[in-house]
Amino acid sequence: MVKIGIIGATGYTGLELLKLLQRHGAAEIIWLTSESSAGQRFGDVFPVPPALGGLGLVPWGQADLAAADLVFCCLPHIAAQAPVAAARAAGARAIDLSADFRLRDPSQYEAWYGHEHVQQELLAEAVYGLPELHRAEIAGADLVANPGCYPTSIILGLAPLARAGWLSGTVIADSKSGVSGAGRKPSLKTHFVEANENLSPYSIGRAHRHLAEMEQELGRLGDGANGRSGSWQIIFSPHLVPVNRGIVSTIYVALPGGVAEADVRERYTAMYAGEPFVYLLPPGEVATMAHTVNTNYCAIGLTFVAPAARFSGDACTLIVTASIDNLIKGASGQAVQNMNIMYRLDERTGLL
Amino acid sequence: MVKIGIIGATGYTGLELLKLLQRHGAAEIIWLTSESSAGQRFGDVFPVPPALGGLGLVPWGQADLAAADLVFCCLPHIAAQAPVAAARAAGARAIDLSADFRLRDPSQYEAWYGHEHVQQELLAEAVYGLPELHRAEIAGADLVANPGCYPTSIILGLAPLARAGWLSGTVIADSKSGVSGAGRKPSLKTHFVEANENLSPYSIGRAHRHLAEMEQELGRLGDGANGRSGSWQIIFSPHLVPVNRGIVSTIYVALPGGVAEADVRERYTAMYAGEPFVYLLPPGEVATMAHTVNTNYCAIGLTFVAPAARFSGDACTLIVTASIDNLIKGASGQAVQNMNIMYRLDERTGLL
Amino acid sequence: MVKIGIIGATGYTGLELLKLLQRHGAAEIIWLTSESSAGQRFGDVFPVPPALGGLGLVPWGQADLAAADLVFCCLPHIAAQAPVAAARAAGARAIDLSADFRLRDPSQYEAWYGHEHVQQELLAEAVYGLPELHRAEIAGADLVANPGCYPTSIILGLAPLARAGWLSGTVIADSKSGVSGAGRKPSLKTHFVEANENLSPYSIGRAHRHLAEMEQELGRLGDGANGRSGSWQIIFSPHLVPVNRGIVSTIYVALPGGVAEADVRERYTAMYAGEPFVYLLPPGEVATMAHTVNTNYCAIGLTFVAPAARFSGDACTLIVTASIDNLIKGASGQAVQNMNIMYRLDERTGLL
Amino acid sequence: MVKIGIIGATGYTGLELLKLLQRHGAAEIIWLTSESSAGQRFGDVFPVPPALGGLGLVPWGQADLAAADLVFCCLPHIAAQAPVAAARAAGARAIDLSADFRLRDPSQYEAWYGHEHVQQELLAEAVYGLPELHRAEIAGADLVANPGCYPTSIILGLAPLARAGWLSGTVIADSKSGVSGAGRKPSLKTHFVEANENLSPYSIGRAHRHLAEMEQELGRLGDGANGRSGSWQIIFSPHLVPVNRGIVSTIYVALPGGVAEADVRERYTAMYAGEPFVYLLPPGEVATMAHTVNTNYCAIGLTFVAPAARFSGDACTLIVTASIDNLIKGASGQAVQNMNIMYRLDERTGLL
Repeated sequence: MVKIGIIGATGYTGLELLKLLQRHGAAEIIWLTSESSAGQRFGDVFPVPPALGGLGLVPWGQADLAAADLVFCCLPHIAAQAPVAAARAAGARAIDLSADFRLRDPSQYEAWYGHEHVQQELLAEAVYGLPELHRAEIAGADLVANPGCYPTSIILGLAPLARAGWLSGTVIADSKSGVSGAGRKPSLKTHFVEANENLSPYSIGRAHRHLAEMEQELGRLGDGANGRSGSWQIIFSPHLVPVNRGIVSTIYVALPGGVAEADVRERYTAMYAGEPFVYLLPPGEVATMAHTVNTNYCAIGLTFVAPAARFSGDACTLIVTASIDNLIKGASGQAVQNMNIMYRLDERTGLL
Repeated sequence: MVKIGIIGATGYTGLELLKLLQRHGAAEIIWLTSESSAGQRFGDVFPVPPALGGLGLVPWGQADLAAADLVFCCLPHIAAQAPVAAARAAGARAIDLSADFRLRDPSQYEAWYGHEHVQQELLAEAVYGLPELHRAEIAGADLVANPGCYPTSIILGLAPLARAGWLSGTVIADSKSGVSGAGRKPSLKTHFVEANENLSPYSIGRAHRHLAEMEQELGRLGDGANGRSGSWQIIFSPHLVPVNRGIVSTIYVALPGGVAEADVRERYTAMYAGEPFVYLLPPGEVATMAHTVNTNYCAIGLTFVAPAARFSGDACTLIVTASIDNLIKGASGQAVQNMNIMYRLDERTGLL
Repeated sequence: MVKIGIIGATGYTGLELLKLLQRHGAAEIIWLTSESSAGQRFGDVFPVPPALGGLGLVPWGQADLAAADLVFCCLPHIAAQAPVAAARAAGARAIDLSADFRLRDPSQYEAWYGHEHVQQELLAEAVYGLPELHRAEIAGADLVANPGCYPTSIILGLAPLARAGWLSGTVIADSKSGVSGAGRKPSLKTHFVEANENLSPYSIGRAHRHLAEMEQELGRLGDGANGRSGSWQIIFSPHLVPVNRGIVSTIYVALPGGVAEADVRERYTAMYAGEPFVYLLPPGEVATMAHTVNTNYCAIGLTFVAPAARFSGDACTLIVTASIDNLIKGASGQAVQNMNIMYRLDERTGLL
Repeated sequence: MVKIGIIGATGYTGLELLKLLQRHGAAEIIWLTSESSAGQRFGDVFPVPPALGGLGLVPWGQADLAAADLVFCCLPHIAAQAPVAAARAAGARAIDLSADFRLRDPSQYEAWYGHEHVQQELLAEAVYGLPELHRAEIAGADLVANPGCYPTSIILGLAPLARAGWLSGTVIADSKSGVSGAGRKPSLKTHFVEANENLSPYSIGRAHRHLAEMEQELGRLGDGANGRSGSWQIIFSPHLVPVNRGIVSTIYVALPGGVAEADVRERYTAMYAGEPFVYLLPPGEVATMAHTVNTNYCAIGLTFVAPAARFSGDACTLIVTASIDNLIKGASGQAVQNMNIMYRLDERTGLL
């Protein structure tokens, strides 16, 4: 049994993590922390059955970090730096679900998150926890930076193209997310009456922080000439959708001349054929939220669009539709998948 | 009072039209038709108050077409051709809410709708009923082809650019629509449990019929060189969203070199300043469904995106967000607006 | 034109009131107040079109009360006492949408609302603004206490029985309401992810404050023997439902022996036949939210239930289903209806 | 491994059953049947990952019934009679999720379901599969009649009272259910636009078929004097709520004189203390859909209501709130729980 502590357990990712670990079989929860609800039981915070409800909550400063084999940190960015460092110092391995250890370049972190990174030596050891890209490093990592929800859908949707060097120009990623992605803190934007029967774009263009990790990871996949070289950029437009959970990213890529549909399908098939949690849809199908909600899967559809007959341009457009559950493959499920890899368990344990 | 008949009144556009006309003040409903519910009352078909519920339904072949000053036809495409022709032959003016009289080129109609157009002489007299583009012709028209819902949002969102000749290359229109856009006929796709807590792309790329009217109308706005010349095309991706009504179109346009944000704002302001039902949002704001739901307005937001610092391209991207209520400005409200123009009434009558 | 001021305009009842008055025709808005958003425009607070969005907001202490013919007060209970008194002192008539002037007995107010009533002389002049019960007094009133949303549905659902003296024993009122009834202040209970895909009973039994006005008004309808005499009580169980607006109350009444279905229908028909905004559904139909959402109507269904064959009891149960829109007939629409009565306008003005 | 066949797998209970069995560990699916989709794969019918999607569908007449240890039948009532009989004849044990084997008295079946029962000898051997009432019989049963969704919530909510002989007079059960309870066949009532932003009572009073099994099972719990003796009846009012899944039943019981709150709590605690899937909420709390959605639990809240001070009656009212997930504890999860009991597995296998 892996002895597990969870820091910041009273948000939606904490709840989801607990549900997954409860049925995992090789995980033993030894403590949960919460600053705002310390002293209460988990059942005071969420309407859960007694088995989960009876777990107590302590401030993270009182948790026995050293007793844990593995610590999951579910705090928001900036707040995660100190407790993750403390857990590592106490000898526990850690999976951080915030953005604090995702960006390799501390100056990028500071630019996007508006705060100095004070744990830069840990940053150096952190592995970006997307199994489909970094499985081997994750297995040996002591600190895994669990990817963001939007980036999971977009990186998986574009990785075969990036690896082939087929990204160029401006890539449009128009993403739609359920409201749990905004967290559990009440606000006017997430007030039922405001979000329900509504759909809202927000932080569109090049304003959302998740751009940094998308471009970092896709850039690392290409060679020098097409990776970080400046030959492509992403325009990213998230939209808030009145559902609890789910992400669909609709991604528009101008294919290089001479790249045919069969070439593209071959690359996707080659990259994802053995993956336990990524699957390609048959030609003609598109990914919907329903394909993956309440699962750890990412479903990907590929739609090829020939130019209009009267149009003078000749490039084909590839539309990638990529669907995940933002709380599972986009957060807690992927964290459990990383745990399984780190502890040499069947990667699917607790995730089917 | 304008004497009004409604053909095909028992769908959602018929219901919406009746509600609007009921409070209009200058409209007198003289008959309603329905093939599937003939012999019933309107209240047998919809849960409406007695004032609307008591209206009877007859087959359109039994309606006194000649007694109507104005006939609204709410039938689906193909089905609208014959009754609209009959209404015109009986001397009534007509506003058709289907696609049957929107495309000026009968071969385009046949290509997109898979059916011959058998009323081509009426097609020649029909005016595309988007008041912001064709107000003067609508005033004198005997047959108005009311625009489609998606096209209303996308044409209004792009018209100032098209008029300026600033469309080029591939324009991405990623649209999100409520389920009433799919009509009232039950299907698995619109079954509550399938559509709720889901979001689905469909007919993405260059597959949706509404592309034809978007490109026709935007093409007519440009001059020869940038109109139908082939210098631009639209990739259009509709998505089904679990709300009853509303459309947000997020539209991505690569701006020509040298066109500055101020230039673009000036063109939009110039075109829409006097419009009663189109308004621009302040810089920094984006259009959401909530801006327009249950109204006849179109709200437009403009977001300028400079290229990423590391990116070698230099074009700015303009993201237009355009929001309408698909049943009002996207259908029945716009039809009433057209009626007001045709009868020299205040254009806002019944629509505030 | 009636010159109108609105105190506390930035909640959902304020927004709804403004939308209704905008199309009213005989109403001129002269000022709006808000404490939290003073100095802003209405369009900074809600995503509304420019015509509404441009209206300015002042603290109520700065509003020219004396310039108004009629003041609507949309503040919460307790907070409404002072500004309503000030408006009356300045000579304006007032319609208060809070609970502050609904209960005739100040000790009841204090018992239910936990606060002394400091405007008891105004309480004495206030008329409970349910037109179906008090139309004549409303016409002459200077202060109207607009009913609560749940009470509107339940009082209208039971009034013919109360008047006939046919209420006895425990009446069960199981009500279901949309989330806008909880106001616009964000909270965990109304956070989208918590309320969506959920349904929650709350304040069930005899705990909800609306019981006081229901029993007061129904009690006044009976004679001494069955009114406040203690022969009946209401058990009231509200439930939060994941819709924006709408109330359905399902009410269970044991009918006195000898009262037949025809007797009951006759009483309801007699009471509501001439009412512009209450209608009875045909036998066999039940009231749903869809019957009245976005309207000022109350729809009422009557279902008679004979006892089970094997059951020793012999009383029939009457199930009344009553539906309203909580923001319209349950708040702002009923307030406009009261205004129309007070100013001898057609009672339906602005409400169709 | 238990070899399992599923008849009628392409409805929502079939889908849910497959998901549960996939993670069960001791279940091996050997065939799935569907009449409407025979020849297709499960993935053609639902948007599921490849592991489930690849399963083939055959007509039930072609399924190898004898190869199955256990057959789950997910067909609608009447349609289940023949295949369940065939499965039993072939030597398989069976769990039927329809109503076909729930009522012990064939004349009751015929009265409520309008169809003769042609498998009456099987009816005699069938056990009503509510583990909390009939665990021992289920363990030895060859045919289990899985309870209805509404009855599961209402029987569990009332069983301790029935066993104590504390039911009397008319019990009101006001239930609220998600739309998946209505099945997967599209209809106007379950069309997204009709059901969304709506709430509808239906079949209220003594009209719904589920009354028969509720009264049968609760009647068997009492002794002769209060069981089927006629001293109580249920009035049952289901309501359709715009959520995918979940049931809350709000149940009103007049307590006999002299029965105190502590007595009642003691009975509930005694009955459910050892139950793995029923839990009582602390005093002051009510059961919401969120307490049990996506789980096999039933959560029960008890609210005691003293009579109003002015009311002449003296009985206390007990309000029971009972929540389940209609597709899990109300259908497929309870079926798996029954399977676990039948095969002496840990009752929670696959259900946490």
